[in-house]
Amino acid sequence: MPVNLQQPDRSRLFPVPGVTLAVAEAGVKQAKRRDVLVLELAPACRVAGVFTRNRFCAAPVILSRAHLASGQPIRALVVNTGNANAGTGEDGRQRARAICAALAEELGVNVEQVLPFSTGVILEPLPADRIIAALPTRQHADWLDAAEAIMTTDIMPKATSRQVMVNGKTVTVTGIAKGAGMIHPNMATMLGFIATDADVGQQALQQMVRDVADQSFNCVTVDGDTSTNDSFLLIASGQAGNATIDADSAAGYAELHDAVRDVAIELAQAIARDGEGATKFMTVTVEGGHDRAECKQVAYAIARSPLVKTAFFASDPNLGRLLAAIGYAGIDDLDVDRLDLYLDDVLVATGGGRNPAYREEDGQRVMNQPEITVRVKLNRGEASATVWTCDFSYDYVRINADYRS
Amino acid sequence: MPVNLQQPDRSRLFPVPGVTLAVAEAGVKQAKRRDVLVLELAPACRVAGVFTRNRFCAAPVILSRAHLASGQPIRALVVNTGNANAGTGEDGRQRARAICAALAEELGVNVEQVLPFSTGVILEPLPADRIIAALPTRQHADWLDAAEAIMTTDIMPKATSRQVMVNGKTVTVTGIAKGAGMIHPNMATMLGFIATDADVGQQALQQMVRDVADQSFNCVTVDGDTSTNDSFLLIASGQAGNATIDADSAAGYAELHDAVRDVAIELAQAIARDGEGATKFMTVTVEGGHDRAECKQVAYAIARSPLVKTAFFASDPNLGRLLAAIGYAGIDDLDVDRLDLYLDDVLVATGGGRNPAYREEDGQRVMNQPEITVRVKLNRGEASATVWTCDFSYDYVRINADYRS
Repeated sequence: MPVNLQQPDRSRLFPVPGVTLAVAEAGVKQAKRRDVLVLELAPACRVAGVFTRNRFCAAPVILSRAHLASGQPIRALVVNTGNANAGTGEDGRQRARAICAALAEELGVNVEQVLPFSTGVILEPLPADRIIAALPTRQHADWLDAAEAIMTTDIMPKATSRQVMVNGKTVTVTGIAKGAGMIHPNMATMLGFIATDADVGQQALQQMVRDVADQSFNCVTVDGDTSTNDSFLLIASGQAGNATIDADSAAGYAELHDAVRDVAIELAQAIARDGEGATKFMTVTVEGGHDRAECKQVAYAIARSPLVKTAFFASDPNLGRLLAAIGYAGIDDLDVDRLDLYLDDVLVATGGGRNPAYREEDGQRVMNQPEITVRVKLNRGEASATVWTCDFSYDYVRINADYRS
Repeated sequence: MPVNLQQPDRSRLFPVPGVTLAVAEAGVKQAKRRDVLVLELAPACRVAGVFTRNRFCAAPVILSRAHLASGQPIRALVVNTGNANAGTGEDGRQRARAICAALAEELGVNVEQVLPFSTGVILEPLPADRIIAALPTRQHADWLDAAEAIMTTDIMPKATSRQVMVNGKTVTVTGIAKGAGMIHPNMATMLGFIATDADVGQQALQQMVRDVADQSFNCVTVDGDTSTNDSFLLIASGQAGNATIDADSAAGYAELHDAVRDVAIELAQAIARDGEGATKFMTVTVEGGHDRAECKQVAYAIARSPLVKTAFFASDPNLGRLLAAIGYAGIDDLDVDRLDLYLDDVLVATGGGRNPAYREEDGQRVMNQPEITVRVKLNRGEASATVWTCDFSYDYVRINADYRS
């Protein structure tokens, strides 16, 4: 079951003026399930995105990148669950393009003004005909409906919303995400869409999506597998009436950035809380490194270790596995005699070995909690990084052994 | 259960003249279990080793490196299971040194002439007093006894033996290894000891141990975790009467190297066959790369992926997970449209997508086997690499959630 993750409150997901949502049942993988989401964007919307660095990136990722690069205003996003359209070669790209073309024709725009997204099983042909046939049947939806329409093995829909003042105007930021397995983003998560009615220039929006991804979706791992379809899109409709934020130095950039970041972090953490088979939510913080990169490297070594993750599943304060992961993180000049390791507030290791004052019952108390912070002080610099993950349970194996059946 | 791995035949494990084995019950972790192994070496023996690159390397690894570096002839190895003496700081080093000192005194040699090895739980104080007390009670043993005395979560002891002609003399090569979890060696496996009665110079022996490790123990992964204690030692007693092999260009080097390599590969594969919770043994071969490093990188991305490993556990030909792992292996200029992916002899993916002639029943037939070869042709060079691993089952989680209890 998801760890401290509630069903989003529908009434607290603020609509974003300029962004219209609709869902349809296309029967991509299952009948009678809303599996297609369309986001229609008003003409003034700006869109920026970051995508998976997996070389086997999916057909929709290739098309979305190309359509964004065309520079034409994006007028719609079309998302399906049930099939990732990945590892499908040129045929897969044609199918994704056909879906974009059908929606573009209906909306009276060019095919490049539609971005496609897919999530689900890899290496199966996408039933594009069924999606195209379902598009005209789509029904108006809100953000919670939208979050539900993009789920795969997610147990909980993931959506959140903020309103902040930007240059004297109230601005809304609302986002949804999906993803529970094959989560170890390089550039973004499985699928994340955040929309705001703020007015933001294209370059500033592109910078914001990169900055935010690096602090949110790129800090979560469930199983270390980087998906073929990871995409994170930021949409700014410009209808809030604020003066255009056209650079990261412009007034209002910081306030909007922080609101978008908070939405993205909440969604990213929700992915770890709802990680496949998760019973615990772990925050891994590494401090005192030379730079952020080495801190992240150590944090990911811990967060990816199957031995660490099974020990957390068992609530077993098997701290040696944490030390082993730190040791093999790949920092060649790491002086292990200088580092400190904490479980929440409990100092468990220092001076290259167990803290003499450490008592197993203190470690056990922390390990019994559903939320645990692992904190490593490298004591060799000023940088830090945080990564979120979940434990590794029987159910992870069950879910992934059963996924296609 | 181990995959196609039999109990070694005691009568086919040839003794190595110059190497005397003995085991004792020290009660390191459990009472009434043979948990200490001593290898006594005749005066002319030469010893070379490779060790873990984990920065949190264990006290015995630090001591073994230092004792080898002292240049004094090694006269004994002492190995305990049940406790890794890792993450134990200066106190752990003192305990390991005390064990070496006790054995050295008995044998009338210097403390630097004894190498210590430990395997088992991390971050617990090693009960050195019990080991020292048990040393005088040790009983003569053969190689199968020795293999059993170093097991931790291994189900099967791992030992094998060869005899080959080297420069007109019959030479024996016999080895043992242990390891089932926390297996992703950087320089060696958990513990591997191979002894030969060949006469080999120190420099040639050092080169041989590195070459062989790179082709055997460094090609196996169970869970991607690199141990704090990985050690692989090669002992040459010089009693076979061959002319000293004093360089890799010397007559006999190639024959001996190949015999040692074959023993090491069999032991390394045995570790994957006996991987924690293993139900399948997988060989991952990557061909046609620019260099061996990138082939190994792709092979390890596949062999480490929890999604790939759970699909193999389920006998599910979920080939998309293989493509995803290839895609995120980190080869930035990889052209996925050029690669071919085979399951045994079945071409499953080509041209960036599924092979049009591929039938699910062919993939299913291969996936149902206990031994499966995944073969990737990158089609961009002449290099290749092979890695061995096992699948990821419920039992992996159970074993690692229970390990300390």
